Amino acid sequence: MAKDQKTVGVIGGLGPEATLDFFAKVLARTSAKTDQDHLHLIINNNPKIPNRNEAIAGTGPSPGPALAESAKALELAGADFLVMVCNTAHAFQADIEATVTIPFISMIDAVVDYVFKRYPKNKQVGVLATTGCLDAGLYQNAFAKHQIGTLILVDDLRETFMQLLYQIKAGRKDEVKVQMKSLAQTLIEQGADLIISGCTEVPLVLFQSDLAVPLINSTDVLIERVIELV
Amino acid sequence: MAKDQKTVGVIGGLGPEATLDFFAKVLARTSAKTDQDHLHLIINNNPKIPNRNEAIAGTGPSPGPALAESAKALELAGADFLVMVCNTAHAFQADIEATVTIPFISMIDAVVDYVFKRYPKNKQVGVLATTGCLDAGLYQNAFAKHQIGTLILVDDLRETFMQLLYQIKAGRKDEVKVQMKSLAQTLIEQGADLIISGCTEVPLVLFQSDLAVPLINSTDVLIERVIELV
Repeated sequence: MAKDQKTVGVIGGLGPEATLDFFAKVLARTSAKTDQDHLHLIINNNPKIPNRNEAIAGTGPSPGPALAESAKALELAGADFLVMVCNTAHAFQADIEATVTIPFISMIDAVVDYVFKRYPKNKQVGVLATTGCLDAGLYQNAFAKHQIGTLILVDDLRETFMQLLYQIKAGRKDEVKVQMKSLAQTLIEQGADLIISGCTEVPLVLFQSDLAVPLINSTDVLIERVIELV
Repeated sequence: MAKDQKTVGVIGGLGPEATLDFFAKVLARTSAKTDQDHLHLIINNNPKIPNRNEAIAGTGPSPGPALAESAKALELAGADFLVMVCNTAHAFQADIEATVTIPFISMIDAVVDYVFKRYPKNKQVGVLATTGCLDAGLYQNAFAKHQIGTLILVDDLRETFMQLLYQIKAGRKDEVKVQMKSLAQTLIEQGADLIISGCTEVPLVLFQSDLAVPLINSTDVLIERVIELV
């Protein structure tokens, strides 16, 4: 990699385990021989940002100002562009973009572009995502622009997903693996040709080996996009 | 933890795997129930900083200016105090302190204080550290202030340590475990009452279960110090 490569600002802490997973996967993916071959990342692991799902549901304060502050701190620290390791928080992308002058690279757009280019014949994409992410229509709207249909969890299954998510955030990963696989299976049975891990906590418990259809991990896709851009 | 707790600036990337290990251990140690319970860390994972050991040996440029720049970036981003996940780089602590106004918390001092308080009867401490760290006398001088003697690797064994270190940095951890244990054993046979993992790469391959005497991990001690201070 070139010496003048860009510095990546990472809005993290949403949650911290997903940020750690992103960092670990960047290191594994770049497989450097010496320290100096690795990417320069500045990771703002700020777990104090208000709950994204509660804000979208109207039951809590907006995380927009705190996300914008986190982004601004990264810009001040010298980041050349920004990414955010949380799908749901992309509902507040406008708050970030209104505050910084460096580019914000959307994980949602990266995933949708990736699916559109690699799997052009898929008609229906199953999206495992939070209630907030689904209510904000982030994936549904982005896929719709490419005439790709989305299948999402509804009713009680959304609530089940959220319960699994908070268990993952509390460190209870082993307990939820079977249930997360079962949620993915529900979408496959409804006709999903592939599944999107549209929440950065999902890859902590759901793996390609669990499913018979392609599993697109939003964290991995974002990392590929970052590597293209540095 | 209080809502007004401090933001920790982490000078990292020296190497990235040790920084990842630090981040993972902070998360495991703080064992939060929700995102918002975790610490706010800003991690400047800058792997482009010149090699510390080459600089101390006089065969490469000083990393001092790059470390100071990394520290300044963290101060600009809002860090309340700084730590650095690399023992050897503490030889350039003065460059950092000359550049920022926020406190720099030394990992070397944290380890020496910890040993002095917890193991007051130990006469001889074995230090596994890089050639640069040893040549700069970082641990020897700090322990000497407390009248604690240090045993260090000499001659060919220093070279062996450095070879193991660069193998760890290149991702070949399994291959070096036995040899790292053997280096620790050498210091124990010379009379070390405890062993310091005085290089943040060492805890990636050497564990307490490998040794019959206490193993003090500089990364863990630094994390305890951070938790006291936030």
